[in-house]
Amino acid sequence: MNGAESLLRSLHQAGVEVCFANPGTSEMQFVDALDRTRLMRCILGLFEGVVTGAADGYARMAEKPAVTLLHLAPGLANAGANLHNARKARTPMLNLVGDHARRHLRYEAPLTADVPATAAVFSDWVRTVHSTQSITGDAMDALAAAWGHPGQIATLIVPADIGWEEGATIEPPERAKTRAPRDIDSDLLRKAATALGPDTVILCGGTVLESPDSIAGLADLAAATGTSIMGSGPIRRLERGAGRFEIPRIPYPVDDALAALRPFRRAVLIEALPPVAFFAYPERPSLLLPEECEVIALADFDQDGRTAIEALVDALGAPPAPARTAAPCPPPSAGAMTNDALSAAIAAALPEGAIVVDERLTSATNVPALSTGAPPMSWLSLTGGAIGIGIPMATGAAVACPDRPVIGLQADGSAMYTLQALWTQAREELNVTTIIFANRGYQILKQELFKVGANPGPDALNMLELNRPELDFVSLARGMGVPGRRVTDPAELYKLIRAVVKEPGPYLIEVVL
Amino acid sequence: MNGAESLLRSLHQAGVEVCFANPGTSEMQFVDALDRTRLMRCILGLFEGVVTGAADGYARMAEKPAVTLLHLAPGLANAGANLHNARKARTPMLNLVGDHARRHLRYEAPLTADVPATAAVFSDWVRTVHSTQSITGDAMDALAAAWGHPGQIATLIVPADIGWEEGATIEPPERAKTRAPRDIDSDLLRKAATALGPDTVILCGGTVLESPDSIAGLADLAAATGTSIMGSGPIRRLERGAGRFEIPRIPYPVDDALAALRPFRRAVLIEALPPVAFFAYPERPSLLLPEECEVIALADFDQDGRTAIEALVDALGAPPAPARTAAPCPPPSAGAMTNDALSAAIAAALPEGAIVVDERLTSATNVPALSTGAPPMSWLSLTGGAIGIGIPMATGAAVACPDRPVIGLQADGSAMYTLQALWTQAREELNVTTIIFANRGYQILKQELFKVGANPGPDALNMLELNRPELDFVSLARGMGVPGRRVTDPAELYKLIRAVVKEPGPYLIEVVL
Repeated sequence: MNGAESLLRSLHQAGVEVCFANPGTSEMQFVDALDRTRLMRCILGLFEGVVTGAADGYARMAEKPAVTLLHLAPGLANAGANLHNARKARTPMLNLVGDHARRHLRYEAPLTADVPATAAVFSDWVRTVHSTQSITGDAMDALAAAWGHPGQIATLIVPADIGWEEGATIEPPERAKTRAPRDIDSDLLRKAATALGPDTVILCGGTVLESPDSIAGLADLAAATGTSIMGSGPIRRLERGAGRFEIPRIPYPVDDALAALRPFRRAVLIEALPPVAFFAYPERPSLLLPEECEVIALADFDQDGRTAIEALVDALGAPPAPARTAAPCPPPSAGAMTNDALSAAIAAALPEGAIVVDERLTSATNVPALSTGAPPMSWLSLTGGAIGIGIPMATGAAVACPDRPVIGLQADGSAMYTLQALWTQAREELNVTTIIFANRGYQILKQELFKVGANPGPDALNMLELNRPELDFVSLARGMGVPGRRVTDPAELYKLIRAVVKEPGPYLIEVVL
Repeated sequence: MNGAESLLRSLHQAGVEVCFANPGTSEMQFVDALDRTRLMRCILGLFEGVVTGAADGYARMAEKPAVTLLHLAPGLANAGANLHNARKARTPMLNLVGDHARRHLRYEAPLTADVPATAAVFSDWVRTVHSTQSITGDAMDALAAAWGHPGQIATLIVPADIGWEEGATIEPPERAKTRAPRDIDSDLLRKAATALGPDTVILCGGTVLESPDSIAGLADLAAATGTSIMGSGPIRRLERGAGRFEIPRIPYPVDDALAALRPFRRAVLIEALPPVAFFAYPERPSLLLPEECEVIALADFDQDGRTAIEALVDALGAPPAPARTAAPCPPPSAGAMTNDALSAAIAAALPEGAIVVDERLTSATNVPALSTGAPPMSWLSLTGGAIGIGIPMATGAAVACPDRPVIGLQADGSAMYTLQALWTQAREELNVTTIIFANRGYQILKQELFKVGANPGPDALNMLELNRPELDFVSLARGMGVPGRRVTDPAELYKLIRAVVKEPGPYLIEVVL
């Protein structure tokens, strides 16, 4: 059996079912092997950022890694921004990157570049396969690296000749031994239990917010002790909506973040680090907690924050908090597309079992607050600040959960980085509704420009405007086989979302702001 | 004066006139300074691959570097594939990349990543600025690194606080001392002169093919000695068309390349390396020259091949070769869009002073052969094999040469990597005609799949087809403000090209194959 086929068979036996791909010549033996074995679902992206963004969305929902297939250093670079986001999310992902055949690497061919160095920048684990005999063992090691707690980005570089040579064997799934979480320190646990109270905030992220049980535990702790709870750091997935305790995030604007954390004298960190401002600004600190705040780092990312919460609830004997009964948001009336009306239209329209993919930045800012009474949903966010993940992530989430409607809340500027993912949604007939907030500008950067003390004139503003010419997202979607409509009225928006989430296949709604 | 402003003023005094940008928060002080100084033309790209592809096209035509403005490690990664192409072309380019303020770098902020390591992969020269006092000197060093012979990719990383702090001074342009080419070895020159003859091939690239005088010199050498001349390696710009000696390239398919070079017993390299196959294949060599062929490396990339050719002509006393009189290609009749008819429609329609940007791969393969009698033109090619440079490169070439029509010959699969460049063409009202060859597949990969010995089934072919759904490039272009039309008849294609190249602004023609 050749290297490529044995690798794919081994990964499949170990549980990998989906391959997101944008292959080139150096991966043709994998394309051939995927075809011959027909073990994995192969999903083509027209650009590598689509591939890794989709693999991230898939893994966040499926709770297991997909494999990606990428082409040499330039393909890996194109995949890099969404690898960055996935890495910050601690998403499990296994990248297979082809390289030139070994004997070809010494020459200056057009595509020769440093693949391992490119991989290193955005991966937690990198290895180059050195023989056809070792390829499946290497692949199992990569899978183990990717799939432990927390997840990691593992990148395996396969020279073309190792993929096409015969003599490889299949490795048993047990070879991919994943890391178990490191134990929680019992002294720290006692210290944290004692610290809970009205002056204390629990800052949590990671796997904690993916678990409805842990979220209920946090609610119990808040009710029993008066402790505040906030989401902090990159949040891979948040389970929220009716019946679930709503956990606010630390705000993005640095002054709001500082104000939100100023009241606290103690912070307990659970799968979170001490919170840091997104960017540094003149005359603002980088760290967001008050200087005198005591920090208790109860669980790091490689520990199981869910166990820590269970133990805290036990230690305090906190009784179950009363169930929350937030009312659903009423739909908006016809009228102007204000931020409130836009937010209400979306919050009111969210269907049962929704997966919300959130790449809003400055629009529809009240959707979280207004949707606490919406049916329980999974909420996926931008984790690493590299814009252009929303449409790919929605694509991957829909692949993982074909029975759940996916709703993308999408800034227009960010959408243009990886819009090609719409084509994959059409090709795979995925039930994704993408709502574009067409404010025709990099609004977030206009806000940032003022924060560095600028007094912007026409040239600066021109570099932050997308209105000349205006992007027509309905035409763009049509060009990739996705139907769509432009909407200017919030009542119409509500009705349209309600209608299209029930239909199979993708749809794009351009909300003109 | 703050760091950002002094840097821009210094670069402008040294001759940099254009900034291609996709900025983020860590570059806001540059946006502010570009606005206040109004010294440079600022051109916004909606994606970083557009920015670096356009900077490459600009520099290939303007023969000087543009500056790019990129955001942190993910922005630089998005720029990477076209940096790779520009680096292989030895295009001069100066990238300014913002990083977090220095005090912020020690924290795990969402966008924190290794910017210098990301830069190193696709740059020839990298430096991080360490103080506001050194910023302009560092920028001059970067410019010198970029603009020497040959061109280089220079990347200067600027922490945000260094850009916004006061206390910087302007450096005089003389600080940017560029490298002069290394001298040609006179012994090698004598050896090469003796070697010329019917069994010899001159393989040339780099600056040689940008010079009509050098091309005429090569024609004289060919006529006087019977030596063959071929273009080899990455070719940044080729001057060709009526009255110019036509220099064929080594073919892409490995068997054709081996056959083309088999007759030669000696090869003289002028700004070229011994030619290498694009990829390695089972049972094919990596190096393309016959094993027994003697190689005379007359000029490396850091030497001036144009001087070498002048010296060879002098040494041999080669008289001027008779002027070539290739007839213009007649336009095709109405009928099927065969490869010949398609090629003829384009070759016949090429206008005076055209800049042709060539990202064809498998379509319109006869355009070069049929356009030897077309008006003199500049021909820009994909140099590094990273697809997705055509539309950005055409954009940059049009910025450099506003008085010349730009014609993009564009594969459909490749177009989808950086299609966002169409929006920049519309915004800047650039006279670019993009001709998309809509064969609805990665045809080149289908050919490659067979070369690795595969016998592809439906899954493999599905991963190489773009026909489900079909991309509608006219809708995609309209979505970005570029008018377009779909064409199925070669006579109509000819007429449409003739018409739209005369109009200002961009246009897209989708040729259905």
